[in-house]
Amino acid sequence: MTRPVIVLVRPQLGENIGAVARAMLNFGLTELRLVEPRDGWPNPAAGPSASGADRVLDEAQLYSSTADAVADCAHVYATTMIRRGMAKPVVTPAEASTEIRTRPGRSALLFGPERSGLDKDDIALARAVLTIPINPDFGSLNLAQSVAVIAYEWSKQEALAMPTLLDLAPPAPQAELEGLIAHVEQVLEPAGYFFPENRINATRRSLRALLTKPGWSSAEVQMMRGIFSAVQPRVRSTQGE
Amino acid sequence: MTRPVIVLVRPQLGENIGAVARAMLNFGLTELRLVEPRDGWPNPAAGPSASGADRVLDEAQLYSSTADAVADCAHVYATTMIRRGMAKPVVTPAEASTEIRTRPGRSALLFGPERSGLDKDDIALARAVLTIPINPDFGSLNLAQSVAVIAYEWSKQEALAMPTLLDLAPPAPQAELEGLIAHVEQVLEPAGYFFPENRINATRRSLRALLTKPGWSSAEVQMMRGIFSAVQPRVRSTQGE
Repeated sequence: MTRPVIVLVRPQLGENIGAVARAMLNFGLTELRLVEPRDGWPNPAAGPSASGADRVLDEAQLYSSTADAVADCAHVYATTMIRRGMAKPVVTPAEASTEIRTRPGRSALLFGPERSGLDKDDIALARAVLTIPINPDFGSLNLAQSVAVIAYEWSKQEALAMPTLLDLAPPAPQAELEGLIAHVEQVLEPAGYFFPENRINATRRSLRALLTKPGWSSAEVQMMRGIFSAVQPRVRSTQGE
Repeated sequence: MTRPVIVLVRPQLGENIGAVARAMLNFGLTELRLVEPRDGWPNPAAGPSASGADRVLDEAQLYSSTADAVADCAHVYATTMIRRGMAKPVVTPAEASTEIRTRPGRSALLFGPERSGLDKDDIALARAVLTIPINPDFGSLNLAQSVAVIAYEWSKQEALAMPTLLDLAPPAPQAELEGLIAHVEQVLEPAGYFFPENRINATRRSLRALLTKPGWSSAEVQMMRGIFSAVQPRVRSTQGE
């Protein structure tokens, strides 16, 4: 059984972090990661709303970036509403739960700040968008309730014996993917690829989406790096002309 | 479609009543009934935590007994943990949702006070016990989260609420993929990538597998070709040295 990691990105209220811990433990999840919580960490407001789920809070890990928080995860889901232009697969909590159980490698579920939700750069880290189907006329879902619904779906399938896809190599950990993306950018930069300048951020996001989508294994990421390494020295020598 | 009525029996905190209203509206439920709320009704603490679900609070009905609150309902479910001596059918949220949708007559879902849950007399009014399966070692489920999970299950069966893959482009036609593979090989060949010679076929197969796996769309295949085009001229110029 693979338990997903819950990652709260820039959570605002300590009360909500505590309520998330409680909802997690209710449904058997224990690993909480916090990316830049607004009021620092530990936060004395979290304890009371955890209602006894102190273990989850005590073991929570603090990160300074979303990328760091998911560096060891093979499957990253961005929990958010569906927006136009989001060119990623969209899964329901039930579908995500099945995937988490049946695919090798760790999974991380990203949740954004209470007010604004995940931003584009956070979503860009994920291969899939996880959406809780809700009333289209009233879309503001409470953070801890979102976690509760998803953790509930995950725990529902615990009794079922699911076959696993043993022969399929898991996607490389996020840190290896980051290494590939950095490598590709490093090759493309001197080649004048990032042009015009006012499009640089959008181009970088597209590039990230392109390389995130495949879910390449470690061996495949290595092969991709080999391809760019093969091209790289010649680019350099050209530059030196 | 039959929407169940949510009945909060002797709720303690106004904040929780508001959070319940919000969870209800998130999943398309609107009818809230309150039995003897501890701090009276209306309760100014409810509004902020309802986060805009004011309509549910405004239309909430007040009752002086649980029996009165469910008098017009054909199916009453007591939401509670399973306890010894409970001689009633026990259903999961998914089973209850199916029953609510398929049986004629209104359904009411009873939720007890935050601290103690429903008492024996309240449970006695119900024909079935509705239990959310949770971690047996950590059984304290937040009131609004319980409502959220059950309302979510109910709304899941509503076809309209499902997300669609509007923005996800289909994989490019095979011919475009072949074009990309040929392009990449053309860039790699002069870079000395296909070495040693007796491994050429295996390397080509791996390269094809690598580029086939992503299921890139036409736009993504184009972007990938743009990347290799950016690098290509420099490789050529190096060759000409």
